[in-house]
Amino acid sequence: MPEFEKIEYRPKPVRELLLEMKNLSELMIDLAYSAALFNDKDLAEEVLELERRIDTLAYLLDMTIMIAARDAEDAEALAGVAKVAGATDKISDAAGDIAMIVKQGIGIHPIVAEIFERVEEHIARVRIEEKSILIGKKIGRLNLAARMGVNLIAIRRGKEWIVKPEDEEKLMREDILIVRGAPAGINLFKELAEGRRRRIGG
Amino acid sequence: MPEFEKIEYRPKPVRELLLEMKNLSELMIDLAYSAALFNDKDLAEEVLELERRIDTLAYLLDMTIMIAARDAEDAEALAGVAKVAGATDKISDAAGDIAMIVKQGIGIHPIVAEIFERVEEHIARVRIEEKSILIGKKIGRLNLAARMGVNLIAIRRGKEWIVKPEDEEKLMREDILIVRGAPAGINLFKELAEGRRRRIGG
Repeated sequence: MPEFEKIEYRPKPVRELLLEMKNLSELMIDLAYSAALFNDKDLAEEVLELERRIDTLAYLLDMTIMIAARDAEDAEALAGVAKVAGATDKISDAAGDIAMIVKQGIGIHPIVAEIFERVEEHIARVRIEEKSILIGKKIGRLNLAARMGVNLIAIRRGKEWIVKPEDEEKLMREDILIVRGAPAGINLFKELAEGRRRRIGG
Repeated sequence: MPEFEKIEYRPKPVRELLLEMKNLSELMIDLAYSAALFNDKDLAEEVLELERRIDTLAYLLDMTIMIAARDAEDAEALAGVAKVAGATDKISDAAGDIAMIVKQGIGIHPIVAEIFERVEEHIARVRIEEKSILIGKKIGRLNLAARMGVNLIAIRRGKEWIVKPEDEEKLMREDILIVRGAPAGINLFKELAEGRRRRIGG
């Protein structure tokens, strides 16, 4: 796979591109700190994946803005959007910097990380494997929060990201899930996703 | 008041400084986008206030790291922290860039902002005025979420920030509160904070 793929231009409203950039950059920050504090290389990979996605969105947004601006008035109205998009790209770069610290194995001093172990919920990356009973299930029906104290904050499906997925969304094989919760609940969920556990309820 | 104040060095653990930087930068991103999307100059001011606070924390953290590192092993273990802090500063700068767009009146195209009006809850800045009945009240006792669908996400008290305040925290005169919720609930809360409404319950 080439490192730089050709980005296909498909028209998408400016507002949708900006909303997606905003949501993904917020997710990135969250994942980047967790990656650093828990020295989690899987999460760091997802941060870099998100950075690539935001780069693509920034490029599409630039193109869309150029096409949309037909006169000075349009251009003025769209300048703000372009600037917000630029700042989002900068945020995404910074989150990428944090992820690179983890990838390079620099890590955080254990004494520093310790306080976060206590005060913060964990975030983890979980992959839905072929034999998982979660495949085809609607998220809402799983009652993850009530059953195991786990919140599903995002899904990556190939290159597409679904932030704050709806209850009606069905889980698919090879989905990469980003979950938040207490360590025990996350472990339980991992067993389900990886097919090592075949029943959801107690 | 001079623009650059002398920063007093008070020893504080590295982990506390980093935790505060992390929490404040996440808050900043949230406020910055809201400021841009709803063209809210008050929120933009708070973002710039947060940027100053993060600058101060970054400076204190640098000093603390220098003092803490006594040998090569320490220095190596602390290098990761310094890098995360640097990235946080970059995130904070980017959020500041977004706030400046609002301050300069560049704004976001109304058609772009419209989608956010629908999908996003609002964030607002509310100041506790002298005659407010909220003064001295514990946050937990107010039941803001149940009563008016409002969440208190942060308090600024002078230059200090309290992110995700505890239920036991008492509101004080001149507190600047950052709240999130539906517009109707926020308006109700504003009336209470500004002393224009004297009863909390229906």
